[in-house]
Formats: sequence, structure tokens, C-alpha cells
Amino acid sequence: MKKLPEKITNVTSYRVIYGDTDQMGVVYYANYLRWFERGRSEFLRQIGLPYTAIEQAGFHFPVMDVNCHYNQSAHFDEVVQIESELAEMGRVSLSFSYRISRETDTCLLATGSTKHACIDHAGHVTRIPKILEDALKAASR
Amino acid sequence: MKKLPEKITNVTSYRVIYGDTDQMGVVYYANYLRWFERGRSEFLRQIGLPYTAIEQAGFHFPVMDVNCHYNQSAHFDEVVQIESELAEMGRVSLSFSYRISRETDTCLLATGSTKHACIDHAGHVTRIPKILEDALKAASR
Amino acid sequence: MKKLPEKITNVTSYRVIYGDTDQMGVVYYANYLRWFERGRSEFLRQIGLPYTAIEQAGFHFPVMDVNCHYNQSAHFDEVVQIESELAEMGRVSLSFSYRISRETDTCLLATGSTKHACIDHAGHVTRIPKILEDALKAASR
Amino acid sequence: MKKLPEKITNVTSYRVIYGDTDQMGVVYYANYLRWFERGRSEFLRQIGLPYTAIEQAGFHFPVMDVNCHYNQSAHFDEVVQIESELAEMGRVSLSFSYRISRETDTCLLATGSTKHACIDHAGHVTRIPKILEDALKAASR
Repeated sequence: MKKLPEKITNVTSYRVIYGDTDQMGVVYYANYLRWFERGRSEFLRQIGLPYTAIEQAGFHFPVMDVNCHYNQSAHFDEVVQIESELAEMGRVSLSFSYRISRETDTCLLATGSTKHACIDHAGHVTRIPKILEDALKAASR
Repeated sequence: MKKLPEKITNVTSYRVIYGDTDQMGVVYYANYLRWFERGRSEFLRQIGLPYTAIEQAGFHFPVMDVNCHYNQSAHFDEVVQIESELAEMGRVSLSFSYRISRETDTCLLATGSTKHACIDHAGHVTRIPKILEDALKAASR
Repeated sequence: MKKLPEKITNVTSYRVIYGDTDQMGVVYYANYLRWFERGRSEFLRQIGLPYTAIEQAGFHFPVMDVNCHYNQSAHFDEVVQIESELAEMGRVSLSFSYRISRETDTCLLATGSTKHACIDHAGHVTRIPKILEDALKAASR
Repeated sequence: MKKLPEKITNVTSYRVIYGDTDQMGVVYYANYLRWFERGRSEFLRQIGLPYTAIEQAGFHFPVMDVNCHYNQSAHFDEVVQIESELAEMGRVSLSFSYRISRETDTCLLATGSTKHACIDHAGHVTRIPKILEDALKAASR
């Protein structure tokens, strides 16, 4: 496990649409995973290495594991804040952690994490690309 | 516009999950387009030419137009019937029409249609593949 | 058909996530309807009457009809602009029209429209609420 | 923790549509949670107590925690099998576990679990309803 440079957090926001809700009147539980994706995507953009650049360089980070703990419900038209951090970086995998909160009162709605493998275009597990390590170092300076 | 062989209808069914509904307590309007896709996919399977075979042969049928008229709402746990027909076949495009109804009482929930271009792997518009014409002829015999 | 006050257009933007795409490498066609919803929702907020306020006042605008014409594909990580206008307002129904374009080069991706009934909490068709007419008048001054 | 009656497993199947996939050419990770929901819904139907009946009796089982481990990818047009079991039943909560496999070759694609609170219509945590205990007993006889 590589020592991560000092903590970088990305914060992005999203407004809930009707299509995100279910008949309980709250956001359907699977949609939080869409927010996690949005969060890690913005994290990568923030450190100067959008996921499109990672893919162009020949790498993919498919999700191996996800978990989510639901605290409070998100509702239609609320703005949620998605906080994303790179929690761990191994040799061939990396993990993000997430906190979803309601923007108006910062009430914590959910927490979760995803673990990703690093694979090349052929689908083989491979080392985390140096461009990511470099981007992280540069960003945490 | 080619004369279509005698009408073929595919009927397939789908049970509504919570994730399909919204906070009005009914299926979210965009999800009917998922049912249309399921319908035309099963239509193609029925005539012996699943969409995977069409793609393997080098063709795609991206949607150019869709419309949907909503009559009655679909609800959680209801089984809907999706009836799909090939409505038109041009030289480089084709259209499907759909009827969505509730299985228990055959109440009509929605009708709609999609128009598709025929493109090759390079994304260029091309003629409807002969394998589709042949499959339709064989199926309507 | 009531004469609409001078044209009001809402413009809002959305960044495409992986979860919006399909295996063609483009945004799945049903997801444009989510953007339409986002667009009309922001339109209503812009005129000072968010949809939550309409619902609190006892009204709903379920979709009766939708159509979408797909021009060009939207891709992962692109930002799309959603332009929404109130196209028509009848006694008991209203219609929105939409234009989806790519933010970087303003390339038009799709156009569409939705027609909505106005119903009360009991689900009965009813007159467009005066609060909407008032909000439109105030906004177009 | 109540002793569960002998293991009951529900097996249901689902055919992947284009709309379930993403641009990696595989099913988007959030959609497995839709399959979990389908699975537990069919489990409840199998023991004679569909979720609609639970809701009519005044109870809801919102998800408190979910996790999913992704083994292999699911692809367009594949049929997946969803195996669901009631893994645990506490006084005020219950857990389901899931196995997703490819129907053709039984290849294991994913495993996961969900933990649910039992709440009443007012949203308060309450005891697992007796109707569920009774249904389980009857089903495992």
C-alpha cells in the first residue's frame, strides 16, 4: 500500500430529479452509486487527470466492490453534496470513499466506498498508471 | 418503402420494480423507453435474428426518433405486456411500434414508436442488411 | 390556447456520467427524457415557482406525450446544455419544448417536447393553476 | 437474532438490455442493485407475502446498507440468474444475500447483501411484522 499524499477532497453537487426518486418519495438506493461515480469522476478532474484521459492512456478502473450505508433519505429537488476522497492506493487497485450530504443543512445522508481494479485495454490487471501517481503528487503540493 | 411481409407481433412481459417508479407512485416516464427497447429486442429474437447477431454482422440501429403517448400509469409489481411490431422498413431506416398494457386486465397503458437508422461500424448510414429481410420473410411464412 | 407571455428560456447544464452511457459508447436514448425533466424543473424554478411549490399547492403535471429527435450523440464526460421553453399552455394542459446541445461547440444533439396534463391530488384533470399564470406574467415582465 | 427456519432460496432471471450497459460494454455497476431488489421482491412473493402486501399492512423495509462484490461482468442480452435468501432476521431489521450468475454457464458474476430496517407508515422503526414470520414458517415447512 503506497503512502498517499496529503488528503485531497473533491466536493461536487447534484440536484435530485423526479427520475431519481421511487414511490417511497425518496431517492432510490441504487442511484447513490451514480453519485459515487460522479464524485470520483470530479475528483480525478480536480487533480488534473479526468477519467477520459486515463482511458485514453489505456487504463480502466472497473468497480470490484461497493458498499453504501444509508443514513437519511434524499428527496426530490434537494441538492446533495458529494464528497470524494482517494482512500487507498495499492499496486493494482485503488479505493474511493464518499460522503453524501444535504446541501441546505449539511445533514449526512449516506457514506460509502468503492474499490477498483486497474486494468489495461486487454482487460488484464495492471499497475496503477504513473500518470495518476504524478497527478496526485502535483495536486497535493 | 418496402412492402412488409404479413404482420409479426412479439409479446413479452416485464414486472415493475421499485426502482422503476417515482414519487408519484407510478413508473417514471423515461422507463417506458427501456420497455420499448426490450420489446424490439425480443421481436428480433423471435424472427431468429437477435440484435447481437445484427451487431456481429456489422450493423447498428440507433434510435433517431421516439414518441410515447401515456394513457394510464403502470405501478409497482404490476406485470406489463410489451407488444412490438416492425411498422415500416425503408432503404436505410426502420420503425417499430409498441403497445404497453397491464397484464391482469389488458388495460392499455401506453403506445409509442421508434425510428432507427441503419449504420455500419464506421457510423455511416447504410442499407438495411439482407439478413434482416431474409429473417422477416422466413418468419412470416 | 392562452397567449403565452413573451418567450422565456431556461438554460441549464449537466455533465454526462458513465452510468448514462450504453455499450455503443453514447448516452442511452431514454436518458434524454431525464434531461427534459431537469430542464422543465429548472424552467419552473427560474420563473419563481419550483415544481415542489406546484405540488404543495395540490397540482401535478404528469407527462401525457413525449417525443425526442436524436441528431448527434452525447458522450461520457461531455457537458450538455438543456434549453427549455414553455411552448403552449391550454386550459388543462401545457407543453414544453427542449433543445439539447453540447456545451463546447453548441452542436445540437437532440430536440423534443413533452405535453402534460394538469391534475389535482385526486388525479382529476383540472385547470392550470393561477399561480403558474401569475409566475409566468411576472417572469416575462 | 431469531433462528431462521430452514433456508429458502428464490431464483429468478432477468435479460440484460442495452439500457443496462455502459460504454465499457458491460452492465453498469449500479444496476446490480436493481437486480437485488428484483430478487428480494420475488423471494417475498415466493413465500406468499409480496412486498405490496407488506406495504398494505403498514410496513416498509428501506435499505440501510448494501454491498456488492463484482466478480465477472454481465453483458447485453445475457440472462442473469438472481438467487436471493433471507440471511438474517433481527427484531427490527432483516438482511438478504444475493448471488448473480450467468444462466448459460452458471458463472458467478456478483454477490452482495442488503440490510433493511423495518419501519411503519410514520417512518418509525418497528418490529418485524408477524405476517412475515408466519409466511416464512409456512414456506419452510
